[in-house]
Amino acid sequence: MATMTGREYLDSLRELNPEVYFFGRRIPSVVDEPMFQPHLHAAALTYELAHRPEYQEIMTATSHLIGEKINRFTHIHQNTDDLVKKVRMMRLLGQKTGTCFQRCVGLDGLNALYVTTYDIDEKYGTNYHERFKNWLAEVQKKDLMPSGAMTDARGDRSLRPHQQKNKDTYLHIKERLDDGIIVSGVKAHITGAINSHEILTMPTRTMGEEDKDFAVSFAIPSDTKGVTFVFSRQTNDTRRLDSPLDAGNPKYGIVGGEAIIIFKDVFVPWERVFMAGEYDFSTELVETFAGYHRSNYGGCKVGLADVVIGGSYWIAEAHGIDRASHIIDKLTEMIAMAETCWSCTLACSYEGYKTPSGAYHIHPLLANVVKLNITRMVYEWMRLAQDIAGGKIITLPSEFDLENPKIGKNVEECFVGKEGFPTRDIIKMLRLIENMSVGAGLPEAMHGAGSPAAQKIMIARRGNLKRKVELAKTVAGITRDKEFEKIIGKDETAYWNEVRENIKKRREVK
Amino acid sequence: MATMTGREYLDSLRELNPEVYFFGRRIPSVVDEPMFQPHLHAAALTYELAHRPEYQEIMTATSHLIGEKINRFTHIHQNTDDLVKKVRMMRLLGQKTGTCFQRCVGLDGLNALYVTTYDIDEKYGTNYHERFKNWLAEVQKKDLMPSGAMTDARGDRSLRPHQQKNKDTYLHIKERLDDGIIVSGVKAHITGAINSHEILTMPTRTMGEEDKDFAVSFAIPSDTKGVTFVFSRQTNDTRRLDSPLDAGNPKYGIVGGEAIIIFKDVFVPWERVFMAGEYDFSTELVETFAGYHRSNYGGCKVGLADVVIGGSYWIAEAHGIDRASHIIDKLTEMIAMAETCWSCTLACSYEGYKTPSGAYHIHPLLANVVKLNITRMVYEWMRLAQDIAGGKIITLPSEFDLENPKIGKNVEECFVGKEGFPTRDIIKMLRLIENMSVGAGLPEAMHGAGSPAAQKIMIARRGNLKRKVELAKTVAGITRDKEFEKIIGKDETAYWNEVRENIKKRREVK
Amino acid sequence: MATMTGREYLDSLRELNPEVYFFGRRIPSVVDEPMFQPHLHAAALTYELAHRPEYQEIMTATSHLIGEKINRFTHIHQNTDDLVKKVRMMRLLGQKTGTCFQRCVGLDGLNALYVTTYDIDEKYGTNYHERFKNWLAEVQKKDLMPSGAMTDARGDRSLRPHQQKNKDTYLHIKERLDDGIIVSGVKAHITGAINSHEILTMPTRTMGEEDKDFAVSFAIPSDTKGVTFVFSRQTNDTRRLDSPLDAGNPKYGIVGGEAIIIFKDVFVPWERVFMAGEYDFSTELVETFAGYHRSNYGGCKVGLADVVIGGSYWIAEAHGIDRASHIIDKLTEMIAMAETCWSCTLACSYEGYKTPSGAYHIHPLLANVVKLNITRMVYEWMRLAQDIAGGKIITLPSEFDLENPKIGKNVEECFVGKEGFPTRDIIKMLRLIENMSVGAGLPEAMHGAGSPAAQKIMIARRGNLKRKVELAKTVAGITRDKEFEKIIGKDETAYWNEVRENIKKRREVK
Amino acid sequence: MATMTGREYLDSLRELNPEVYFFGRRIPSVVDEPMFQPHLHAAALTYELAHRPEYQEIMTATSHLIGEKINRFTHIHQNTDDLVKKVRMMRLLGQKTGTCFQRCVGLDGLNALYVTTYDIDEKYGTNYHERFKNWLAEVQKKDLMPSGAMTDARGDRSLRPHQQKNKDTYLHIKERLDDGIIVSGVKAHITGAINSHEILTMPTRTMGEEDKDFAVSFAIPSDTKGVTFVFSRQTNDTRRLDSPLDAGNPKYGIVGGEAIIIFKDVFVPWERVFMAGEYDFSTELVETFAGYHRSNYGGCKVGLADVVIGGSYWIAEAHGIDRASHIIDKLTEMIAMAETCWSCTLACSYEGYKTPSGAYHIHPLLANVVKLNITRMVYEWMRLAQDIAGGKIITLPSEFDLENPKIGKNVEECFVGKEGFPTRDIIKMLRLIENMSVGAGLPEAMHGAGSPAAQKIMIARRGNLKRKVELAKTVAGITRDKEFEKIIGKDETAYWNEVRENIKKRREVK
Repeated sequence: MATMTGREYLDSLRELNPEVYFFGRRIPSVVDEPMFQPHLHAAALTYELAHRPEYQEIMTATSHLIGEKINRFTHIHQNTDDLVKKVRMMRLLGQKTGTCFQRCVGLDGLNALYVTTYDIDEKYGTNYHERFKNWLAEVQKKDLMPSGAMTDARGDRSLRPHQQKNKDTYLHIKERLDDGIIVSGVKAHITGAINSHEILTMPTRTMGEEDKDFAVSFAIPSDTKGVTFVFSRQTNDTRRLDSPLDAGNPKYGIVGGEAIIIFKDVFVPWERVFMAGEYDFSTELVETFAGYHRSNYGGCKVGLADVVIGGSYWIAEAHGIDRASHIIDKLTEMIAMAETCWSCTLACSYEGYKTPSGAYHIHPLLANVVKLNITRMVYEWMRLAQDIAGGKIITLPSEFDLENPKIGKNVEECFVGKEGFPTRDIIKMLRLIENMSVGAGLPEAMHGAGSPAAQKIMIARRGNLKRKVELAKTVAGITRDKEFEKIIGKDETAYWNEVRENIKKRREVK
Repeated sequence: MATMTGREYLDSLRELNPEVYFFGRRIPSVVDEPMFQPHLHAAALTYELAHRPEYQEIMTATSHLIGEKINRFTHIHQNTDDLVKKVRMMRLLGQKTGTCFQRCVGLDGLNALYVTTYDIDEKYGTNYHERFKNWLAEVQKKDLMPSGAMTDARGDRSLRPHQQKNKDTYLHIKERLDDGIIVSGVKAHITGAINSHEILTMPTRTMGEEDKDFAVSFAIPSDTKGVTFVFSRQTNDTRRLDSPLDAGNPKYGIVGGEAIIIFKDVFVPWERVFMAGEYDFSTELVETFAGYHRSNYGGCKVGLADVVIGGSYWIAEAHGIDRASHIIDKLTEMIAMAETCWSCTLACSYEGYKTPSGAYHIHPLLANVVKLNITRMVYEWMRLAQDIAGGKIITLPSEFDLENPKIGKNVEECFVGKEGFPTRDIIKMLRLIENMSVGAGLPEAMHGAGSPAAQKIMIARRGNLKRKVELAKTVAGITRDKEFEKIIGKDETAYWNEVRENIKKRREVK
Repeated sequence: MATMTGREYLDSLRELNPEVYFFGRRIPSVVDEPMFQPHLHAAALTYELAHRPEYQEIMTATSHLIGEKINRFTHIHQNTDDLVKKVRMMRLLGQKTGTCFQRCVGLDGLNALYVTTYDIDEKYGTNYHERFKNWLAEVQKKDLMPSGAMTDARGDRSLRPHQQKNKDTYLHIKERLDDGIIVSGVKAHITGAINSHEILTMPTRTMGEEDKDFAVSFAIPSDTKGVTFVFSRQTNDTRRLDSPLDAGNPKYGIVGGEAIIIFKDVFVPWERVFMAGEYDFSTELVETFAGYHRSNYGGCKVGLADVVIGGSYWIAEAHGIDRASHIIDKLTEMIAMAETCWSCTLACSYEGYKTPSGAYHIHPLLANVVKLNITRMVYEWMRLAQDIAGGKIITLPSEFDLENPKIGKNVEECFVGKEGFPTRDIIKMLRLIENMSVGAGLPEAMHGAGSPAAQKIMIARRGNLKRKVELAKTVAGITRDKEFEKIIGKDETAYWNEVRENIKKRREVK
Repeated sequence: MATMTGREYLDSLRELNPEVYFFGRRIPSVVDEPMFQPHLHAAALTYELAHRPEYQEIMTATSHLIGEKINRFTHIHQNTDDLVKKVRMMRLLGQKTGTCFQRCVGLDGLNALYVTTYDIDEKYGTNYHERFKNWLAEVQKKDLMPSGAMTDARGDRSLRPHQQKNKDTYLHIKERLDDGIIVSGVKAHITGAINSHEILTMPTRTMGEEDKDFAVSFAIPSDTKGVTFVFSRQTNDTRRLDSPLDAGNPKYGIVGGEAIIIFKDVFVPWERVFMAGEYDFSTELVETFAGYHRSNYGGCKVGLADVVIGGSYWIAEAHGIDRASHIIDKLTEMIAMAETCWSCTLACSYEGYKTPSGAYHIHPLLANVVKLNITRMVYEWMRLAQDIAGGKIITLPSEFDLENPKIGKNVEECFVGKEGFPTRDIIKMLRLIENMSVGAGLPEAMHGAGSPAAQKIMIARRGNLKRKVELAKTVAGITRDKEFEKIIGKDETAYWNEVRENIKKRREVK
């Protein structure tokens, strides 16, 4: 079987040697760095669960390319059932990690490029699709994790890529050689970048003809020469070095472990290039990727909601307030919002469609609705979690104080709850709620897969206002209503004339 | 084919002679009464569209009972595809009528009784299901419209049915005879009641043993002896007598045309009785009905949203403000909310399940989420429609003023818009938006299929808080995480001990 | 004393003979027309309460012009205390009428013109202010009610006044004569127009030089030759002809009784002209009026909220559900929103300032905040009122059905509540909640005193973003923070250098 | 003059030697500990600004006790003007620090005890008020900062204080001696505790007779024997040790620097005891304190909003998107919400009243409205700040990476913006927005001064539902409306009889 376990994934990363910086220092081993480990564990779980019998159905699939059972994270969706299973997988992993497990970005990149390379070839007679499938087959066989590197640094956003003073604010082709291309530039806040086997790049926006060199997509191993990663600081990141208790979610961390990827004169052989100048397909690639990716948020974030709802309820029990009507009401609102987002993502999966490439795509309007709701509702339900959990989540002392022989016992007493709820467990849960609600998780829900303004543009564009106008004009009687005429058995004009005659008569009688 | 056209439906009503009151007077002919006609037209459209080739797929189905093609409004859902088509039918009819077409209440009653009578028989060895199917076969063959009469008058709501001073506040069995039962009581605000062929009654709440006589369900023709209807007043109801223009939606009216149904010693033969004292099934019947019915609101009301969004946009065009960014933003928000509700109803249909009776039921948690969202979002999008349409919707003069030879021209000039938009059309559209947004449509969206508090109770109950607690305890490290142990390759306790040792060492070095 | 009682006000209207149309017919007597009476009663209450000893303080004031005690509705605000009393008067009248009492529009017009005519004269040496004061003295002495006629018909809103195809979409000067001006055009949806003694006109928007003839303000008696009123239709307007019970608020009606005012070659003598071409003051006049008027909405609508909150609570009691936690929570939310709006209007009054004319103006930023909140919160609290009151508010039968000897008793039983709550009273209250929440009151709260988009523009403009940027730059350490330097006792740069040195040392130790 | 400067305040703290723990270690010097310094700076600014000429008016007052000019933070409010100036002071300090300056808790404690000790003495003939004034005079003369220690640890919240298994979860009197009392227990998350000169304690909830020993209030110096402080961890707290840039607001920190205060057999002499068993005044004390304290949040948090709005706008400029309509709309919404909260706090100050003690109290209903709004709107405006600022706020690398000679330049380029905006400044501002919006500031806004549920209880209790019911009954015509009878000139019953007669006639004519 072409799937790795969690541990095999971790081991496989040792074979790579990417150039990673954090806190101003080169990190010698990604796998051994305590700052990175929680992120690695979260990604490892995407591998591990594919080996649990109870999750086979949703964690694995049979490749249409290599015919083998593969991890669903490398699968090209063959029908709407695949799309639905994908979001079930997202919710499951959100429930298990309580954070971002990073691997969906690559998955969406794989599918978006599968769709788009096919369409480019159709128009231009290029052979990107074949190249892409060859690389994809490798990914599936080796069960690799590619990061999906889309967002460029962007500089002055009122300028287009080619207008930027410093071209490196966007990744671009510097030179075209016989055997490949030379690229330079910066991709910003790329999820799971340092612990991916491969980097899969895509352009970040619609490009015009003058932006041709910026319309580039390719895949390279993470330790390719000329590639440097700089790992981001995160909310409370160093707590994992201080104390597992203080960290909140010491196993799986917080958010996705974003990194900047700097490309300096990096050589990419042609067989790994999937777009090189076809600027008129940048929109399709961006929108296809964004469509897949936005739909995920109704899966993973709802999984997180499940955790935070459960945690809030447990804390309410521990504090002896779980029967207060306002607590139940808040939990109900949280559930209702979570299931609303879940419904949106289910709907956009069930209503997916087949693209010319054969891969299935989600319903684009509904996918944008998913994400727009997420950008608001995550904030709402996390606010309610904080409301239920209480001010303690931000005033807990450090684990070291609990262990201090002089004051430890007193400090612990300060967080005592109802009998049957060990104080250490209460603190663990409060720290988890802090980790999930007071931190980078919220802006990530806002901006990951594109900011709300981007979703609104898509919704306005896909909302079919013209057809809605026609409906309104027909009901209002501005446009003729043939079905109504069938019912009344006559021409509408004649009918209303009659009606008005009758009114006139009635009024005359008065 | 067992389906009537719109006109045939209207004609079929002439064969009935129900006792209907309105404005203190007995109405001699339901079909000819101008106050009732718009409601009849809306219901007629549910018949008419089944004859349009383009809507065959969603407006008709093949009966599993009689094997014929029937109107989907009399169909028992045989799979999730039927459930999805049902809500597509709802949206379509909402788009076409801009109001309530009434017939879904009966449809949901048919399915709920199909499910529940089966279960009663299983437990008690009764033969309600067989009786019900016999009656249902007639309904399907003749394409009848039964009203779904559930809500009782209820009196003092802090008292149970049998505790009410006046028992008639709930419909109940007064006497059990050899050939049938005698019932009395009142059903309140029953949609489409006066223009239904049959009345299908159901209990309105959970009943205890002492409420046994109130746990009653049966079907009778609308003109059965002892049955009286009192038709409700509606927002701006008499405008349809004054002027088609002032009415806003003169073709199809406003909301559902609710009526009170008074039962006075009405005899029901046993073959038309589907529950008679099995109080322990009242909850199942109510919840099954409510589940179906709540899911509909994400169909029909979204159809209405389509109309009101289209109308708002058209008015913005007519006023020359359709490119203002705040207008586009409001339209986008309206679309996003409408599609959110739509997604919820799609999801709860796709995620339906087979009941023991063979009929399919929707996903109960998600159906309640649909309706809770509707009770808020309908208000929001109608508020935005009013925002876009402007204050004119509530200060338009009457059609008579437009026709007055002295002032008419001046009045019309007052509502002039951009060139190409006839003033009469502008007025028509403003009146339609008034009709849809300033009136009974909103409280109907609030209380139809049960008030928000009812949905919240169901959501809290179905939200599976226990499982969510388990998820949170595992992520927080309170419960052992076996998958994490696979990844780290050791026992969790051992792992954290090591981590803490390493921290200690680092701190000692400092 | 220069104040009329309610009855005297009604009698005073008999002395006028305005040309009023409704339903296509000329109405012979405004006072005797049953369609108009509720509006007249509401306005009459503004007169009547000035005679109640308990309301002297807020309903009356001493004129700075004529030195007599006058009705506060004709008063020029002399200090912030006057501004605060004005909004207390608004809330009181909202509580007493449950609807619009119309007279604040004239009051705000009086104050806005007092301020602006002074400023025009200062710039141009005109004598508008003197003229205006003369007319105002008459208004105060006779306790007249002038309507405030601002909104023009406006036609295509993407065009300026002088660009309109039909100039009559805006009121304008057609001719300037020695003794006065000739004006024509249309003012739309003018509150209280038909029952005001005088019409006080103002331009509706910022005007450019080419719009000079549209920059016109004047006062004329309501029955001036060439002036025609067309009274608007309102939600459920004819119910007051059907039945006092069905009307909901038969005493005081619903909203303001708006009318179109058509001016056809109307002559206005110069002593009644207060602006005639000073287009550069149109913005000041509009904004000053809008400022006053927007602040009122936190008074009157909060008074209405008091009524609807009380009514909702009473209905909950009558239905036996007043102790349900969700009911209490909804009432609490309603109160919190109402008091939020009230706080905004109090604040913008307390924070008022003296204009060069001597009159006091409210705080413009906060006044716009008042109104923006109203445009949303009124919808929210009315939604909650409908939630508490239940679906009955839209399915009540007519009073005639209650009185029908055959069915009346049964119908009444249908609405029975808890003992001690007479059913007729329950119906009265349900009809009042219907009247207030399901009707024109909401769009009025949206668009009266200008639509939300207008408030947003003012808030953006008055929000002082530049100063806020300075604050942020100082806290962020971009701009030098002198106060911080005082605290640390040294230059900021030096300080941070030291801090960084210390960090370096600590890291080196590690 | 009895006021210290910022530096003098810092120096004065050196004279105290409180027992403070953090990270498991005893901190030798509060003033020199880098972890504490930002908090100390923020508090120091409350001293420093009192010496700036431009802020004299709002930062200082003249003591009614000692007749000298004092820092307003030690002042007893003598009129509503004092209350208004207090909230202006709050907003100013919020604008200057961008965080919590801690000193208002003590101020509110001073005023609450001034009011309550007076009332206790009135009832019981005790002399708490005199004692309190003596201590207060010292506080004013020496310009001391007392912390306000109210919240107890509380344990199982379904149990009352005396029912707790471990009595130390509430601070309580263990023994009453001739010269004082012995107290033990824990106060949790006390703002500014470690850098206050004095601790002022108050009970945390309504107490019954059996809770007598828990109804205790007193003041002691921070370094009193038996008192131990444990300082809380905060969001990103150790960043201030890593790098000023990463810290976001390195000058003034984040939130209030809460600490646990453990009292172990602490002796308090009688002259410093202000309540000792008068359990029936615990409610008054709690509510008076809470009233003052809740009103503050409309001051300080609005000051913070000013900073974050300014910062968001500046970032939008730097990114070249400040003219996008959605950005302007978001800024407008932020301003509108901030000014709404500000209006509420102004209103509750202007509408304050004199207590029997002579001190002025705010309007209790409105103060609770302030805080309830804050618990929601702070989340909203911070969400919008994150929306505008973009995902970068959570993916910025550390300052050390910027300084790394190999990658620093590339990393910096990644955050480049529009020309004229230095990249370091952009990073500073992004870090400030992170500091303010992604962290403990939000839960603090939720729970500080009491959680939303507490505010709702007060609003429901103070909302005067009874009077509102009366208003509704009068408008609905259930209660006789005497003012209406004056207007119509006759008895109401007679009037409606006439109306109904007229209706009857009209109907008969038809």
